[in-house]
Amino acid sequence: MDVDRLLPTPEAADLIALTREIADKELAPRVDEHEAAESYPEGLFATLGQAGLLGLAYPEEYGGGGQPYEVYLQVLEELAARWAAVAVATSVHTLACHPLHSFGTPEQKERWLPAMLAGETIGGYSLSEPQAGSDAASLTCKAEPVTDEAGGAHYRITGNKAWITHGGKAGFYALFARTGPGSRGVSCFLAPGQTEGLTFGLPERKMGLQAVPTTSAHWDGALIDAERRIGEEGQGLQIAFSALDSGRLGIAACATGLAQAALNAAVAYANERTTFGRRIIDHQGLGFLLADMAAAVDSARATYLDAARRRDLGRPFSRQASAAKLIATDTAMKVTTDAVQVLGGYGYTRDFPVERYMREAKIMQIFEGTNQIQRLVISRGLAA
Amino acid sequence: MDVDRLLPTPEAADLIALTREIADKELAPRVDEHEAAESYPEGLFATLGQAGLLGLAYPEEYGGGGQPYEVYLQVLEELAARWAAVAVATSVHTLACHPLHSFGTPEQKERWLPAMLAGETIGGYSLSEPQAGSDAASLTCKAEPVTDEAGGAHYRITGNKAWITHGGKAGFYALFARTGPGSRGVSCFLAPGQTEGLTFGLPERKMGLQAVPTTSAHWDGALIDAERRIGEEGQGLQIAFSALDSGRLGIAACATGLAQAALNAAVAYANERTTFGRRIIDHQGLGFLLADMAAAVDSARATYLDAARRRDLGRPFSRQASAAKLIATDTAMKVTTDAVQVLGGYGYTRDFPVERYMREAKIMQIFEGTNQIQRLVISRGLAA
Amino acid sequence: MDVDRLLPTPEAADLIALTREIADKELAPRVDEHEAAESYPEGLFATLGQAGLLGLAYPEEYGGGGQPYEVYLQVLEELAARWAAVAVATSVHTLACHPLHSFGTPEQKERWLPAMLAGETIGGYSLSEPQAGSDAASLTCKAEPVTDEAGGAHYRITGNKAWITHGGKAGFYALFARTGPGSRGVSCFLAPGQTEGLTFGLPERKMGLQAVPTTSAHWDGALIDAERRIGEEGQGLQIAFSALDSGRLGIAACATGLAQAALNAAVAYANERTTFGRRIIDHQGLGFLLADMAAAVDSARATYLDAARRRDLGRPFSRQASAAKLIATDTAMKVTTDAVQVLGGYGYTRDFPVERYMREAKIMQIFEGTNQIQRLVISRGLAA
Amino acid sequence: MDVDRLLPTPEAADLIALTREIADKELAPRVDEHEAAESYPEGLFATLGQAGLLGLAYPEEYGGGGQPYEVYLQVLEELAARWAAVAVATSVHTLACHPLHSFGTPEQKERWLPAMLAGETIGGYSLSEPQAGSDAASLTCKAEPVTDEAGGAHYRITGNKAWITHGGKAGFYALFARTGPGSRGVSCFLAPGQTEGLTFGLPERKMGLQAVPTTSAHWDGALIDAERRIGEEGQGLQIAFSALDSGRLGIAACATGLAQAALNAAVAYANERTTFGRRIIDHQGLGFLLADMAAAVDSARATYLDAARRRDLGRPFSRQASAAKLIATDTAMKVTTDAVQVLGGYGYTRDFPVERYMREAKIMQIFEGTNQIQRLVISRGLAA
Repeated sequence: MDVDRLLPTPEAADLIALTREIADKELAPRVDEHEAAESYPEGLFATLGQAGLLGLAYPEEYGGGGQPYEVYLQVLEELAARWAAVAVATSVHTLACHPLHSFGTPEQKERWLPAMLAGETIGGYSLSEPQAGSDAASLTCKAEPVTDEAGGAHYRITGNKAWITHGGKAGFYALFARTGPGSRGVSCFLAPGQTEGLTFGLPERKMGLQAVPTTSAHWDGALIDAERRIGEEGQGLQIAFSALDSGRLGIAACATGLAQAALNAAVAYANERTTFGRRIIDHQGLGFLLADMAAAVDSARATYLDAARRRDLGRPFSRQASAAKLIATDTAMKVTTDAVQVLGGYGYTRDFPVERYMREAKIMQIFEGTNQIQRLVISRGLAA
Repeated sequence: MDVDRLLPTPEAADLIALTREIADKELAPRVDEHEAAESYPEGLFATLGQAGLLGLAYPEEYGGGGQPYEVYLQVLEELAARWAAVAVATSVHTLACHPLHSFGTPEQKERWLPAMLAGETIGGYSLSEPQAGSDAASLTCKAEPVTDEAGGAHYRITGNKAWITHGGKAGFYALFARTGPGSRGVSCFLAPGQTEGLTFGLPERKMGLQAVPTTSAHWDGALIDAERRIGEEGQGLQIAFSALDSGRLGIAACATGLAQAALNAAVAYANERTTFGRRIIDHQGLGFLLADMAAAVDSARATYLDAARRRDLGRPFSRQASAAKLIATDTAMKVTTDAVQVLGGYGYTRDFPVERYMREAKIMQIFEGTNQIQRLVISRGLAA
Repeated sequence: MDVDRLLPTPEAADLIALTREIADKELAPRVDEHEAAESYPEGLFATLGQAGLLGLAYPEEYGGGGQPYEVYLQVLEELAARWAAVAVATSVHTLACHPLHSFGTPEQKERWLPAMLAGETIGGYSLSEPQAGSDAASLTCKAEPVTDEAGGAHYRITGNKAWITHGGKAGFYALFARTGPGSRGVSCFLAPGQTEGLTFGLPERKMGLQAVPTTSAHWDGALIDAERRIGEEGQGLQIAFSALDSGRLGIAACATGLAQAALNAAVAYANERTTFGRRIIDHQGLGFLLADMAAAVDSARATYLDAARRRDLGRPFSRQASAAKLIATDTAMKVTTDAVQVLGGYGYTRDFPVERYMREAKIMQIFEGTNQIQRLVISRGLAA
Repeated sequence: MDVDRLLPTPEAADLIALTREIADKELAPRVDEHEAAESYPEGLFATLGQAGLLGLAYPEEYGGGGQPYEVYLQVLEELAARWAAVAVATSVHTLACHPLHSFGTPEQKERWLPAMLAGETIGGYSLSEPQAGSDAASLTCKAEPVTDEAGGAHYRITGNKAWITHGGKAGFYALFARTGPGSRGVSCFLAPGQTEGLTFGLPERKMGLQAVPTTSAHWDGALIDAERRIGEEGQGLQIAFSALDSGRLGIAACATGLAQAALNAAVAYANERTTFGRRIIDHQGLGFLLADMAAAVDSARATYLDAARRRDLGRPFSRQASAAKLIATDTAMKVTTDAVQVLGGYGYTRDFPVERYMREAKIMQIFEGTNQIQRLVISRGLAA
């Protein structure tokens, strides 16, 4: 039951077909094992990178796919429908490439961007701290400029970061650390994943998305080359905020894919299972529930695509991105919970994927700005 | 606070601008008086017709606007934001033109369609009967072929119809009556509004949309020229059903416009009114409510536009149309109810328009197929 | 389909039976006419008073009914199920008796309370001002102590009050006016309904509850006898706040009765009307909707009764009262809106009472503290 | 933050205090370990039995607690607030005692009931089959009367049962098997937990409630003494149905306790955690969410207590029991999901209990009759 997608070009349709093929072949058969074992799917992101799926939204000039967001996000959706953790990590990787692409010098971009967009090195995003989620101005992890004996310029990083998707596994991190006081005292770095003085906490024991670790990071005076600073000193929050809206669209797409997968599983079951002599889809009580689920998924997709098209056209899309994140993730939570309901006792077991979908959906309402933060963003946009 | 619309052409943008101008000048100043007095705005539809707004979705060949549904529906939205009854009547008129346009012979179209698309004659739609809402196969109003003394071929219409928007005021009705048994025994007619033997009941005393009457019709053996039959005998339900999806999109657009108007009124009030020393929009309790309203309106619009674009592309859109009708009208009900809440006691009075919006929203969930019927349509589409 | 009520005593059961009898005889036959004409039902409250229904929750010593709140509220429910405006006015009258009963001197009580509890004089409640709803500390209507030529002590009242249920019709008002600065500068008065210098605005043009006027009041230096001050100077807000929780329970009961009436009408219709060959209650799509409505009404009733029993036992009940008001009024809004849905197009007309119920329900979410204020009260109670 | 409970007697208050003490001492410290390891808490039910908590709702004559349901259910709530699996198993045990208590002969009761009510032997309930959930009339597991060589009367049981809480661990099962055709051909047995020819499937791999196994059972011609048949042959479904309403109240209470625990955890966190310089409970955005959660929990409790009091008074309570199950479990699902939201990223980890609560809540909407079945029960009660 593939989604009937509106796509702008035949090339985009081919890309969706390719994604479905890879997702069916590489993701679907491995997801249950890795999620259950909480084991990282080594090599999988390299495969996605080789297929060209890890730089889709960036220019072909640097090896990206040159695709509009409208298309990239639908690719994410297809990944999320098979394996949410992989789709989310792909979205985070895309986000982690943003600072370099948008604020790096031509030299920096030429040096690092191609390997990143080719997926040869996978990115994590490191903004949050244990006491600072969406309150980015209160960051405390600090970066001090130092010069080594050979005259080399570095930053010495000291402090703790939290909630890093792909923590300890990624090849680089978009790191935000304090170089001065206040909200204009944060700078952005393209930190290598392996650095002396950088260690990672144990993976968080999460309700879902267990195959890709989320960890804290501890910077104990580690040195980063000064040329790995992206943008100016103090430009960090500007850089961080500039990517927020795009990142939220990525989560909206992941949530929609997850909801679609749950709907498909519920519809398939409801077409098979009979009670009181009829297929359960033919009992209006469940049929109407399925209809509400289907309408919500259609609506979530339309909502994020509207925001994406605005982005692709260079129009303002911040409010629409927050609305899309809010609506798509609330939809995913509701639809996955209802999908378990449709399967009844069976849905509560790991013999069917819907209980996993439900556990995965919950984090969508939380990360990249909780849905409360999205409401704050939207309401501020409404204030005169 | 005009809606920032994605439109396919500069011409469409001009059309929206024209619509806003007319709506602000002709609709907004008259709506309160006519709705309160339950009096029909004589001449108003002629004005809309002269502006080209009553045939937008039909080909230029017959005097239509040649606009895609994506544009036509956004025009409806702008009308609904000022006066829901007028927008709904426009949607019904558009629906009433459908049988002739899609199933009429070239001769029939040349004869009647130009005046209809120009709004010189306004249409009503007469499918429902007192005991048959969405259960169209059980219609009882009958049409018997008769020949007059001069050899002229006619149908003699006998029976009662119900819930006719513009009843008694329209210049023509798309009438569905029984010419044989069963679901294949219904035929469609382009009935003139003034016919001997045709009378209308008193206007229904409605909760809203009071300026345009809804009535029953009583056919007491009235004669209609046989050449006013559209399509073949027995093709009536096929004709009726072929327009349902498009009609539902019209209601989805009206509901979205109504919700947008309610949101605008609530936001304007919340930016002015202060309690406990702050504007009420700055209290998160109300700010988050407004954010949810705004996200829902954005989402409703994106949902119906997605369906409309599928229609414009010639792709299947029936499920999407039902989903759009369901979501947009539920959104309108919720957003208008919440808008009254934002205005508090003031919102409960006729000094502000939000109580009217709330009364108007309710019918949107009911007509052109109740939202229960929409769920039935969607769930049947999901059944294997 | 009378509600099967848990009642503490046989006397309470008799009282409910009496209420039903009076409500069926005096309220039900008159409600449509007066609501449509926005005309006040002269004499009706005297009838209720003679039946003993206007002082139920007060001690028999002063002519009250000596009933626990658990019983009084169920009486209110029965009234609201026939005529919400009358039930609300009864609740407001009960509220207006509270200051005298709880803070008056024995002399004051003996002088005025018996006539009030007997319903010989009906009370209004005058706390709100145009710019101050729930923000009572910002009241501006002032009361200045003055002495007349004969040495009589008075207060001179100057200022504007708003949203007075029974405004211009009531025999007395519990009036709150400023005698000093700040939140401790408000005093309470038992103001007579007819006073030189007191005029009332035109009735608000409301969406519902139109038979009992809501007006503003304009105090243009009117004099009130000093002995009509209830409690100490500056004790006004304490008095006002002490009755809030009880008043909210009154609204919760009215909302529950209204929801019950809507449910009953919807169930009756759904048992009669057939579509697709079956009663609509037998289609699960509507049957489940009705089930949700019924469960919500049961739950709303249980919720307010739990709070009432705590009040009757002298236990803290403020959080529970706010929760009951919040839940019962949200339930009423949802259930009445859904009841219109069950009746479809018929429900949207004045031929059935459900459209009235829906219009009446909306104000329940607003007055006696909007549901946002209730959430504020509850959340403050949760804060450590 | 103990719940302030309305209790009918001082003895009941003592019982609640005892339950809290035991739950804090025996349940709270062990829950995380056993749930994570999916290991059964050996000995725990014996402890509960010794404390008198496993026969509370049954007469003292047979060693029960002689408590009204109003009290028993609040005990269940306290257990569920610490360990849902234990509370649910307690509810199921109580349900499994019902057939013997209500339909057994005096001899049967004297022989088996005391050990059951003392918790010396724990009960499971075995009605469901793989293809028959709520559709009990389609059961296929059969019981054939046979006589052994010594003339002893037995039933030979053959078939498969499913979804047995405490499967393989329980000391006895209330077993329903077919002795004849149709809905009047089912009989009830008090089957011993250890019987030749009875084996159990592997525990279902569930999303939650993992410390108490749910299994299938396979009866391969196992013999049960004929004297273990409860009631008459063919009376099985009557027996099964007679306990349904009481069982549903048990689940409603478990769900309410679970929701209360989630609320408590969220409130505690929101009182500690600060963002943007304030405790998060002081931001209205979260404060209002917590208020809605608190109101919903209060309301769920009031709803099931109202049904329980009707049961205790011997009044009809079937509709109220279904409404309570529906509302309390939907509340638990919503409140636990929102509790994770309040804790944000932390809530998504096993470092806090809220993710467990959310996983546990889902099954509450499913077992003992899905919430769709509850709606069916309620709607049938409304049909004339």
